[in-house]
Amino acid sequence: MDAATIDVAGIGNAIVDVISHADEALLASEGFAKGSMTLIDAARADALYARIGPAIESSGGSAGNTMAGIASLGGNGAYIGKVRDDLLGGVFRHDITAIGIRFETPPATEGPGTARCIVMVTKDGHRTMGTYLGACVGLGPEDVDPAIIAAAQITYLEGYLFDPPSAKAAFRKAAAIAHQAGRQVALSLSDSFCVGRYRDEFRELVMKDIDILFANEAEICSLYETDDFDQAAQAVRGHVSIAALTRSEAGSVILAAGAAHRIAPAPVARVVDTTGAGDLYASGALFGLTRGLPLPTCGAIGSLAAAEIISHVGARPEARLDQLVASAGLV
Amino acid sequence: MDAATIDVAGIGNAIVDVISHADEALLASEGFAKGSMTLIDAARADALYARIGPAIESSGGSAGNTMAGIASLGGNGAYIGKVRDDLLGGVFRHDITAIGIRFETPPATEGPGTARCIVMVTKDGHRTMGTYLGACVGLGPEDVDPAIIAAAQITYLEGYLFDPPSAKAAFRKAAAIAHQAGRQVALSLSDSFCVGRYRDEFRELVMKDIDILFANEAEICSLYETDDFDQAAQAVRGHVSIAALTRSEAGSVILAAGAAHRIAPAPVARVVDTTGAGDLYASGALFGLTRGLPLPTCGAIGSLAAAEIISHVGARPEARLDQLVASAGLV
Repeated sequence: MDAATIDVAGIGNAIVDVISHADEALLASEGFAKGSMTLIDAARADALYARIGPAIESSGGSAGNTMAGIASLGGNGAYIGKVRDDLLGGVFRHDITAIGIRFETPPATEGPGTARCIVMVTKDGHRTMGTYLGACVGLGPEDVDPAIIAAAQITYLEGYLFDPPSAKAAFRKAAAIAHQAGRQVALSLSDSFCVGRYRDEFRELVMKDIDILFANEAEICSLYETDDFDQAAQAVRGHVSIAALTRSEAGSVILAAGAAHRIAPAPVARVVDTTGAGDLYASGALFGLTRGLPLPTCGAIGSLAAAEIISHVGARPEARLDQLVASAGLV
Repeated sequence: MDAATIDVAGIGNAIVDVISHADEALLASEGFAKGSMTLIDAARADALYARIGPAIESSGGSAGNTMAGIASLGGNGAYIGKVRDDLLGGVFRHDITAIGIRFETPPATEGPGTARCIVMVTKDGHRTMGTYLGACVGLGPEDVDPAIIAAAQITYLEGYLFDPPSAKAAFRKAAAIAHQAGRQVALSLSDSFCVGRYRDEFRELVMKDIDILFANEAEICSLYETDDFDQAAQAVRGHVSIAALTRSEAGSVILAAGAAHRIAPAPVARVVDTTGAGDLYASGALFGLTRGLPLPTCGAIGSLAAAEIISHVGARPEARLDQLVASAGLV
């Protein structure tokens, strides 16, 4: 096979985040489980927007955030996702291309507008999300450019892609092309409720098609229907080459052939907004893997990128991650 | 006269900020003077947007920021400004009303879109701005509701209103109504280049129509065409009842009948983005004045609000300013 010319190709729901501070009472009255992502329709998105406080808008989307992190680390990436040809779509496109990610998926010229996610950040820094998928439902297999996937060392897929029906087909097409080209396929489980919605499919995928798995404690436990992290971690071994399991303040564990590496979290002066913590951990770990770094170093870069993202509002890096990594002596 | 039912009525250019990190080379190649605001047309705004890095969108506008600060401090405010009936206009309206400010100016239904300001933040935390005024040019005297101005203890005007031609007429109408109702009129000089564009008019205004003046060092020096701050401070005395002059890290000075109060800056762990520092200083000082607090306390609240705003990206408060003020024992 040819040498990869792209480090990571990410496929995800292309979303602009609308981020506000909220109190727990609002979450309760809207029936949102704290820390989760709930799908909402356009009317509910409008009604929810009218209820939240002042907000800022920032490009988001799980894989979009991860790819922005890859670029900030100095990696070479491409993104596939669907926006509309509207103002928010222009914002999403600007932000991901301006950081250096190739993004050539054509925007939808009709139908629902660019997706938005209303992110409600509670005082403890945790985020709860209501997502209107909008134009994301238009993503399909035709949007997966085989040349990009075949050229990428790792194709990274977000679990949220199982929500819009035809994106799942795009997901499977990309995984097949990647493997045919001798590349690796990574998956993030995204959200424990998302895992609950597609548990059987995810389990089969993880077993058959995924080389590198990212999940937090709740997600991996949901996948294997257990309350016990160690049991879940045990269950995933053997199904994937690498499983990177994140545990918030407790850091992360990277499981690989016969080894389990415990990774300490990077220090954070104050947790402001946890949005994007998992996405940026994935950026760091994937970047490290594409550079052939040892797994503990991959995890440490992930921890550092996650620490940067939770120290401010928004899920895209404010600091240059390559400089942070160099300062920390990790590369 | 009746008791005021509104603490502060603010009139300004209703703008959404597009905030990105930039290096000095970009400013130089675009010909922007660091720290200033340059007016740009729609085509240049698009071209500049294509050059800047990833950005976040946050409601802005000098008086809009000040009013958001007033609300966050627990004050009762109204805002007058012109947006279009487009997505960014909806964002501006949401953000200012969600924080509790009354905003009833009807949006333009045709013509240019909602104004946007491309804010370029350099490594030192300083900001340089390119503003496309868009729908702001539609603000006119007909938008000034006499009932609101007459009911407001202080009417606050931003100097930037002199840029769009008919806003100046709105400005003068509001000042006249306020004085007729026995209220006070405050002005922020906004920007030293803005002062340069309208120096004679501003000098006359300050002499005849302004009770409370806000200016930073560069602005007050530009108004009186001197390089000497003390000389400029001397010149403004007697023209206004209160002059609040801000000097960045050196704090501020409030000049009033026979007295000069030096106000220390509030501590900031790290200056991230100075956008809004002057606007929020004005929030604090105006809030204090409407509560009848001593001038040094008004200034201290201003310093505290400014310190909050420069500790993060964006010119709208992230923290509850009323709580910060209470914690600091200022009220």
